[in-house]
Amino acid sequence: MRTVKSEIRVGLIGLGTVGSGVVEILSKHQEDFRTKTGVDVVLAKAADRDESRAQALGLPAEIACGDASLVIDDPDIDIVIELVGGINPAKDFVLRALKSGKNVVTANKALMATHGKEIMEEAEAAGVDIAFEASVGGGIPIIHPLKESLAANEIEKVIGIVNGTTNFILSEMAEQGILFEEALAEAQRRGYAEADPTADVDGLDAAAKIAILASIAFNSRTTSDRVFTEGIRKITPSDIAYARDMGYAIKLLAIAARTAEGIDVRVHPTMIPLAHPLASVNGVYNAIYVVGDSVGDVMFYGQGAGSLPAASAVVGDVIDVARRLAVGNPRLIGCTCFFDIPIRDHLETRTKHYVRMRIIDKPGVLAQIAKTFGDNEVSIESVIQKEPSEGGAELVFVTHVVKEKNLQKALSGIERLEVVNEIANHVRVEG
Amino acid sequence: MRTVKSEIRVGLIGLGTVGSGVVEILSKHQEDFRTKTGVDVVLAKAADRDESRAQALGLPAEIACGDASLVIDDPDIDIVIELVGGINPAKDFVLRALKSGKNVVTANKALMATHGKEIMEEAEAAGVDIAFEASVGGGIPIIHPLKESLAANEIEKVIGIVNGTTNFILSEMAEQGILFEEALAEAQRRGYAEADPTADVDGLDAAAKIAILASIAFNSRTTSDRVFTEGIRKITPSDIAYARDMGYAIKLLAIAARTAEGIDVRVHPTMIPLAHPLASVNGVYNAIYVVGDSVGDVMFYGQGAGSLPAASAVVGDVIDVARRLAVGNPRLIGCTCFFDIPIRDHLETRTKHYVRMRIIDKPGVLAQIAKTFGDNEVSIESVIQKEPSEGGAELVFVTHVVKEKNLQKALSGIERLEVVNEIANHVRVEG
Repeated sequence: MRTVKSEIRVGLIGLGTVGSGVVEILSKHQEDFRTKTGVDVVLAKAADRDESRAQALGLPAEIACGDASLVIDDPDIDIVIELVGGINPAKDFVLRALKSGKNVVTANKALMATHGKEIMEEAEAAGVDIAFEASVGGGIPIIHPLKESLAANEIEKVIGIVNGTTNFILSEMAEQGILFEEALAEAQRRGYAEADPTADVDGLDAAAKIAILASIAFNSRTTSDRVFTEGIRKITPSDIAYARDMGYAIKLLAIAARTAEGIDVRVHPTMIPLAHPLASVNGVYNAIYVVGDSVGDVMFYGQGAGSLPAASAVVGDVIDVARRLAVGNPRLIGCTCFFDIPIRDHLETRTKHYVRMRIIDKPGVLAQIAKTFGDNEVSIESVIQKEPSEGGAELVFVTHVVKEKNLQKALSGIERLEVVNEIANHVRVEG
Repeated sequence: MRTVKSEIRVGLIGLGTVGSGVVEILSKHQEDFRTKTGVDVVLAKAADRDESRAQALGLPAEIACGDASLVIDDPDIDIVIELVGGINPAKDFVLRALKSGKNVVTANKALMATHGKEIMEEAEAAGVDIAFEASVGGGIPIIHPLKESLAANEIEKVIGIVNGTTNFILSEMAEQGILFEEALAEAQRRGYAEADPTADVDGLDAAAKIAILASIAFNSRTTSDRVFTEGIRKITPSDIAYARDMGYAIKLLAIAARTAEGIDVRVHPTMIPLAHPLASVNGVYNAIYVVGDSVGDVMFYGQGAGSLPAASAVVGDVIDVARRLAVGNPRLIGCTCFFDIPIRDHLETRTKHYVRMRIIDKPGVLAQIAKTFGDNEVSIESVIQKEPSEGGAELVFVTHVVKEKNLQKALSGIERLEVVNEIANHVRVEG
């Protein structure tokens, strides 16, 4: 193999959780990477506004700096790793690095899911690579397999458990029978959830990730804001118990499917059959289930977060780019959004639905509710009435596959019935 | 992206199960592949000794031929797909194709697990690619992820369910409570097992696959003949029932681990905790569980056999090579066996063991058996005595982690005891 470069110089921006993992892996396996790539992969510069972080990691003074521009503007750096997170100033860092001819590796899902197009185009124009395996599923290889190993497939569907925090919360609720608030507190205690858990529990993090996966799977760009998103705050132990009785687990699923009317892309708590491989993915683990027209069902499982798992994906991308630079190859796989497929209106989505409501327990109630469902073309697969606990009874319906639009209309109608106290929850059902 | 070739010509040898899947995918997705690779991927020639197969697939006369040499010697062919299987004449076909400067894609696990070194060296000398993603796990991406996405890791362990036939048989035995012979007959009836099921049920197929995975995971060549291999013929419904009672499933696992004394590589029926992700991989599905020092645990799951899943992996490799040829890049990742790590003697393996024996039910028997275990440094974690069924009682032991050597000695000693009728079975325990 001809070698055109004997050293690949890496600049790192952001020395937080993932950044410190990257520093650890690069130093621990430097010799190994030399063997694998044929060149030395060297951490040349590391920037963090909080300069004490570099010190804590034992980085020498000539590597550490407080200003990201010292990384971006360094003409000797081949690969910039952006681990700042969020849109600003990360976007500026990434675009400037690309413009100056540097390859960029990032774990930034928010950035890629909102400004992916602009970033891809900048990389294309500059003739450099932009790699972002770590942006989805932590250390789980998923972006490369979708672009490469599964390239022979028309991907039909991607279903992911892509947020470890919410999966931990739902697993705890299921195992311990505790409330959402209690499970969230436990997640925070263990460091799995932020003090402000919004991005996780309201599904925003998962929405960014499924936007990225959908873009790659269907070769058509999807952005976060196009993803129908619903979080897990309303799920109760009683929903989980009903689900289990009916043979389902409740998971926060990120779903992207190819349909005749466009791409169906959404994040919401979902009831999934207990026998489905995703149903037994528990705790902070992530899994991405992919259906292709040739390969059938495949699933990728692993730790979706954490310092070293995410750093594994980042450094995997760095090695990929380094291997290419070592032999002087031009960039290979850039943007794969060749098509422009519309996103289907969420109201057109067809699924089964679980609906739990509190009613006034008197004769004729079921008939009124059933009529409202029927009037809106929602047919019912099963219904369970449960004995009253604190006044009023509970009715649990599972519908046949119906349009979201019809279900919403039916629920509005039912909410207006005098015999209905409350629609306590409503969960979509897959599979 | 500069394009140096506008058409990539593919020659196919072998139009059996996987070959027909390849023909189907190449014809169905030709336009899609042009978009993805920037070139036309064209099936230029297809050889099979049975010329009726090409006809049955509707291949035009100018593509079909009965002689593999017409593919190998065609100067216009860029990529040869070898799907003949077995060592001969596949080895000759592959080496001749490589020597004549053609890239080769193969699904041939037996060939790669025995002659991988020679084939890799020939590809290196000729400056062409040899790709074999389909040789392990059917359509599941595993070889690429191990070489690329997980390159930042020192891989510690690979545990695979890599043979769908035996996994189907064990799943049927567990679900239906039937005998091995009955489950095998069902597998044959469904086309999951050959008339001569030796390669599957005796673990030889799995041994070839774990030899390939171990070579890649540890960057050191392992061949089939170095893999300790034991099949599933001796497993009974009663072993499966005992296992379940103790919280385990029995699976044919292919295991490769890095140890201080060398590579531990083996295939045998294994008891694995029911909570382990591999325990719920049932039917003809395959899964490969990988432990890396950074990524932690990851698992790859999917259909390990079948026409289209395996063809998905083959065509994925073809697209990979075509993308490279399209821009005129030199080959990138060749052989990754950079080291020469010894294979550890199987007798040095340390695991727990499950041992089921039939004994004469009288006082003092347990003491004699326990003493024989003890004399050979085998300590016991648990013991169950079961009521006699057809004369004599049954004792089931689970040992602590012990050396295989010591366990074997203990079993020899126990077999010689007059109070022991038979050591009915012995299954290793993982995790």
